[in-house]
Amino acid sequence: MIKVAYIQFAPVLNDLNSTIKNLEPLLENVSNAKLVVLPELSNSGYNFKNKKQAFHTAESIESGTFTNFLIEKCKQYNFHIVSGINEIEDGKLFNSAILVNSGGCIGKYRKIHLFMNEKKYFHHGNELPVFDLGFCKIGILICFDHFFPEAWRILALKGAQIICHPSNLVTNLAFKTLPAHALMNKFNIITANRIGREGDLTFTGKSSIFNPFGEVICQASIDNEEATLFEIEPNTADNKMITPRNDIFKDRKPEIYAKYLNNV
Amino acid sequence: MIKVAYIQFAPVLNDLNSTIKNLEPLLENVSNAKLVVLPELSNSGYNFKNKKQAFHTAESIESGTFTNFLIEKCKQYNFHIVSGINEIEDGKLFNSAILVNSGGCIGKYRKIHLFMNEKKYFHHGNELPVFDLGFCKIGILICFDHFFPEAWRILALKGAQIICHPSNLVTNLAFKTLPAHALMNKFNIITANRIGREGDLTFTGKSSIFNPFGEVICQASIDNEEATLFEIEPNTADNKMITPRNDIFKDRKPEIYAKYLNNV
Repeated sequence: MIKVAYIQFAPVLNDLNSTIKNLEPLLENVSNAKLVVLPELSNSGYNFKNKKQAFHTAESIESGTFTNFLIEKCKQYNFHIVSGINEIEDGKLFNSAILVNSGGCIGKYRKIHLFMNEKKYFHHGNELPVFDLGFCKIGILICFDHFFPEAWRILALKGAQIICHPSNLVTNLAFKTLPAHALMNKFNIITANRIGREGDLTFTGKSSIFNPFGEVICQASIDNEEATLFEIEPNTADNKMITPRNDIFKDRKPEIYAKYLNNV
Repeated sequence: MIKVAYIQFAPVLNDLNSTIKNLEPLLENVSNAKLVVLPELSNSGYNFKNKKQAFHTAESIESGTFTNFLIEKCKQYNFHIVSGINEIEDGKLFNSAILVNSGGCIGKYRKIHLFMNEKKYFHHGNELPVFDLGFCKIGILICFDHFFPEAWRILALKGAQIICHPSNLVTNLAFKTLPAHALMNKFNIITANRIGREGDLTFTGKSSIFNPFGEVICQASIDNEEATLFEIEPNTADNKMITPRNDIFKDRKPEIYAKYLNNV
């Protein structure tokens, strides 16, 4: 069993110092965790006024204040963090999630499926990495990626036991898709959603942990800051048997799917 | 708008005459429907004692009593029927679903993902056809296929507006996956489940219609015979926009998926 955590809070749009101040006690609350998941775009906020603000709030992962703050916290508490971040590289913005531990930033995922106005600001990513942390194997998907079963399946096939899912959800639709992804792939999901309002957007909270049976085993409120620890057994995700005769991964028929899916 | 229907009943194991007698008034109840969906293996029952019984209860679609009965009912009521059937061809059994109208059997799907003891009796299918009925385009999947998002996605990409889903469900897990499939593919699903017991198996009823928002718009009881009509607008499934900037089919990134999914 390992202790994992989500942090549900409201990043402050365009005010990194306030965001960091808000995060510090929340991270302290889950200092016993091995793996902590934060919401999407935790360094910047979500609902940018314009392109200028999107660029102004972005940081390069190598030298960024927010990344360095998270690394310091990992040194202090000896956990891993997965956090959404507004990332800039070579003059391009990405809606990314970084994987940080006491040694630095050891991985990242760049959101592949962009939602609404994100398309005005961000380039999409092209990779679906899985990271072996020693105590568990994780994949990362961000918010609206929940609409695309292909991404979840690929991470499962690559051996992910836990999907870290930083989010800024503005509807409850993910509560229809996430239980299915967890069940159909037999892995755990940690959805860290934000709360609060930005302009015309209200974020929906209810950060959740789903087990490989598609059950919600831990869920936050709609609108409170919450830093919540929960114990899960990541290895249960390695067992894909759902009956004595059904290994749902061996039951897949990739040669049939490929016949139809090539070129669509 | 078109009238569709599911028929929830208990096929009688190894007794086709009783099954047909039970079906007649149920089909009459939904005689105004354009499309009627029946459970999996409606001609034979599900929980075969042995291979001999599985073979004994199978029929060839060209000359079968059950298929002919359904064709006669289509002539009488002028609807289409999708029904699960224990099919034999060239000495092999398939867990199939036939599409029948007044002109005869115009199509079929053979279950691709076999559950538990089905593997002892049936060969799996290899095709995922979509049928244009003029008033709507349908795909067919059977029961445990609900665990495999690839199949649902392929039918959606091929233009299916309604998935007919004959079932003999013995758990409630499909109620976690089906809303997600409907929502992520923006199509309708008609799940016709059976009721009753056979040996150690209890079937779970709750036949349902799901709309393209993943909502249950019509649901049967756990254990009553029900023949239920409901009106749906199949064309809503053609609209894959979920925000003014998100067409969830154009938002897919098949070139990224293919990079990982080829050969797995």
